[in-house]
Amino acid sequence: MSTGRDISFFFNPQSIAIVGASPRPGKPSQVIMENLKRIGYPGAVYLVNPNYASINGVRCYRSLSEIEAVIDVAIFVLPAPLVMTVLERAKNVRGAIIVSAGFKETGSAGTALEDELSALGARKGIRIIGPNCMGIYDAVSRIDTFFTPEERVKRPTRGGVSVLTQSGSFAELIMVELVSQDIGVARIVSYGNRVDVGESDCLEFLTNDAATSVVVIYMESVDDGKRFVEVASRCTRKKPVVVVKVGKREAGIHAARSHTGAISGRYEIYKAAFKKAGIIEVNGYEGLKDAIKVLNTYELVAGKRVLIVTDGGGVGVNIADACEDLGLEVRELSEETRKRLSTRLIGFSSTGNPIDLTGSAIDSDYVNALEEGLKDTFDLVIVTVLWGAPKITEKLVDALKAVRDRHNVPLLICTLSSEFSRRIAARFAEHGMPVFFTPESVARAAAVLAAGKRYARS
Amino acid sequence: MSTGRDISFFFNPQSIAIVGASPRPGKPSQVIMENLKRIGYPGAVYLVNPNYASINGVRCYRSLSEIEAVIDVAIFVLPAPLVMTVLERAKNVRGAIIVSAGFKETGSAGTALEDELSALGARKGIRIIGPNCMGIYDAVSRIDTFFTPEERVKRPTRGGVSVLTQSGSFAELIMVELVSQDIGVARIVSYGNRVDVGESDCLEFLTNDAATSVVVIYMESVDDGKRFVEVASRCTRKKPVVVVKVGKREAGIHAARSHTGAISGRYEIYKAAFKKAGIIEVNGYEGLKDAIKVLNTYELVAGKRVLIVTDGGGVGVNIADACEDLGLEVRELSEETRKRLSTRLIGFSSTGNPIDLTGSAIDSDYVNALEEGLKDTFDLVIVTVLWGAPKITEKLVDALKAVRDRHNVPLLICTLSSEFSRRIAARFAEHGMPVFFTPESVARAAAVLAAGKRYARS
Repeated sequence: MSTGRDISFFFNPQSIAIVGASPRPGKPSQVIMENLKRIGYPGAVYLVNPNYASINGVRCYRSLSEIEAVIDVAIFVLPAPLVMTVLERAKNVRGAIIVSAGFKETGSAGTALEDELSALGARKGIRIIGPNCMGIYDAVSRIDTFFTPEERVKRPTRGGVSVLTQSGSFAELIMVELVSQDIGVARIVSYGNRVDVGESDCLEFLTNDAATSVVVIYMESVDDGKRFVEVASRCTRKKPVVVVKVGKREAGIHAARSHTGAISGRYEIYKAAFKKAGIIEVNGYEGLKDAIKVLNTYELVAGKRVLIVTDGGGVGVNIADACEDLGLEVRELSEETRKRLSTRLIGFSSTGNPIDLTGSAIDSDYVNALEEGLKDTFDLVIVTVLWGAPKITEKLVDALKAVRDRHNVPLLICTLSSEFSRRIAARFAEHGMPVFFTPESVARAAAVLAAGKRYARS
Repeated sequence: MSTGRDISFFFNPQSIAIVGASPRPGKPSQVIMENLKRIGYPGAVYLVNPNYASINGVRCYRSLSEIEAVIDVAIFVLPAPLVMTVLERAKNVRGAIIVSAGFKETGSAGTALEDELSALGARKGIRIIGPNCMGIYDAVSRIDTFFTPEERVKRPTRGGVSVLTQSGSFAELIMVELVSQDIGVARIVSYGNRVDVGESDCLEFLTNDAATSVVVIYMESVDDGKRFVEVASRCTRKKPVVVVKVGKREAGIHAARSHTGAISGRYEIYKAAFKKAGIIEVNGYEGLKDAIKVLNTYELVAGKRVLIVTDGGGVGVNIADACEDLGLEVRELSEETRKRLSTRLIGFSSTGNPIDLTGSAIDSDYVNALEEGLKDTFDLVIVTVLWGAPKITEKLVDALKAVRDRHNVPLLICTLSSEFSRRIAARFAEHGMPVFFTPESVARAAAVLAAGKRYARS
């Protein structure tokens, strides 16, 4: 039942089988059954386990071949050696998600088993996600093979972010993060040891997936460097692709090897490949978090000139430093603009870049500073709202949104963790303006917006 | 009334005068009056304003010289030109905190005024903090000259962290941060345009201040490079000194100049000076935040070898990367240790560094991994607790504390922002184990502990 490289049936299966189904609460297979129910998977679900005739009133099959239907996706929740036996006998299966551990990551015996698994899948024309993975969380087609209960890892709502990852724990951590940021996802794929399906196949699918507007990849190693660059180059012409590469140096490399059995290649080669493919590379978890948040709202921009408007001089300088560290340009304002600003702004303020409104800023100072500042050319704007009442009102949110829309320029908010900050941050987020809670974080997000387009143009 | 370089009277004043006192709620002088009351300043407070005979039943003096006592600290809350007039006539004042803006930061006229102020202070032997500053928040002597009401900026409790800063907004942001982290402070000094008292005088005082265990400096420029290095070199032999230098590059330099009228010098010179003085330099607000949190709990360590124990393979690799990026050593474990680990750990786990316990870790896996891992030599330990129940119990907190105390090694916790994480993070914090919420953040904290001692030894 070879499907070539097309893996789209994984993301739109008519039927799912759970191999190793169990009625025991908390067992991975039982969690997956519950998750498919909870998320409202609309297709047929078949349970397979020779030890049960039925589970909670649902028929349980003795084997996969007993099922008189084509199984688009069979989820294997079995000890590693048993996976081989069952897969060997499977006749009606298009794709397998093998969540079981006990393969390459455990040493030489496991590696031999994994090699057999690979050969078996190829021989039978069964595409494999895994082993040693969480599989698929798909908010579009309503699939959830992650064997962690929802009480423990909350699931994100539907949205435009898709995530590809070798690390299952990373997938879940990103889920939790997305839930807390109220950012929705399309597809999340955790492929673990990646015996077959990896980032190249998935990225090819996501390139033409209308539900996906941003692709995020957590990478320890690449499946097929040449193909990945080709596929990614096509994808980045359509939507942003962000990658966090871990296992960069000595220690990381050893850890990545034992984690999913993959050996991370030399980091410099990856770096060059990402650049060539127009991929936006970010640094670690923090970089990824900021990238997802900003790309969930804004398109990439063509240049890297940042205007900073601040109500805290020190924080403004800190943001300017962080921006320049990341290759953004924080140019001074023109003489004419500075002159106009000095007549329009109330109180003491410097009229460079950052424009410092000081803690006595009122709502209209922000608007005036932006209107005048944007007469010089900027690609994006960072605005800090550190302090609040009595002088700043909640109307500032609408006023800034209006300026942003009028000038069609991405406007990023930076505030810090005061009570006021949290309140106004929620209002900004409601109005579609992403909020960042440190100077470094907002600079990372700005750099993502500016870095992407530059790569895509070259 | 010259006091030489000793400024300790600012931190233990017998009497404070508020010059420009006003009964109008929300006025800076009125906020300062309220703050001194609220914090319970035990000395005498004199109000000065020729327009009032009394304010809220408290006598109001027409001038400073009408007060028949020595004023240790006179707080000036007046328009800039009036500051000069009043100070010129002052006879009984040791120190002045001039919160008023309108000096160097406003341009050439303000610069001329500030030069006069400097000369005036020197001639009269009055030490000056400011102008254009927030002054002093002192949880030891109970002084609070910050003119922001407590509803807007919550004040930290008493503790061992002291903060020196040119930026008033930065001082307040750090306050808010410290409150949210439940970290206490000794003294916070915001000296703004720094016409007289700056980081060198303050650092000299803090070196011998028993209430201060950690010094944190936010620096745009240095007051006196040579003296600062001398003073700091003495201080770092007694307690950690952390600096965040802003205005590093082009944009930052311009911003820092207009912000407090100071011109930031070449960054490389600063970097060398910090190293020479044994100062721990951190990067921006995030670096400062992490440094304060970790130094509030742990002493500096002698080496930089980190052991990482994780329940999430991907996050472990990410932490290892971040550690090595910051110059820490994530060495592999010895063959013997790896062998012992492979017999003692349940389930699948790699036995390198990071030690990956996987998401199926139970409490005793953590303890066993640490006990065995620490038979090799490490200077500090990072432990992730990403997942929780059902397998991990709250007893893990006590178990990890016991291991830490037995081995006398700093143990840093990394978790992420799930509900479970927040709950267990609070328990760890209660037990004196600092918790960090991203892989990069815990690595920054570890690097601070390791960087400091290395510099101090040289």
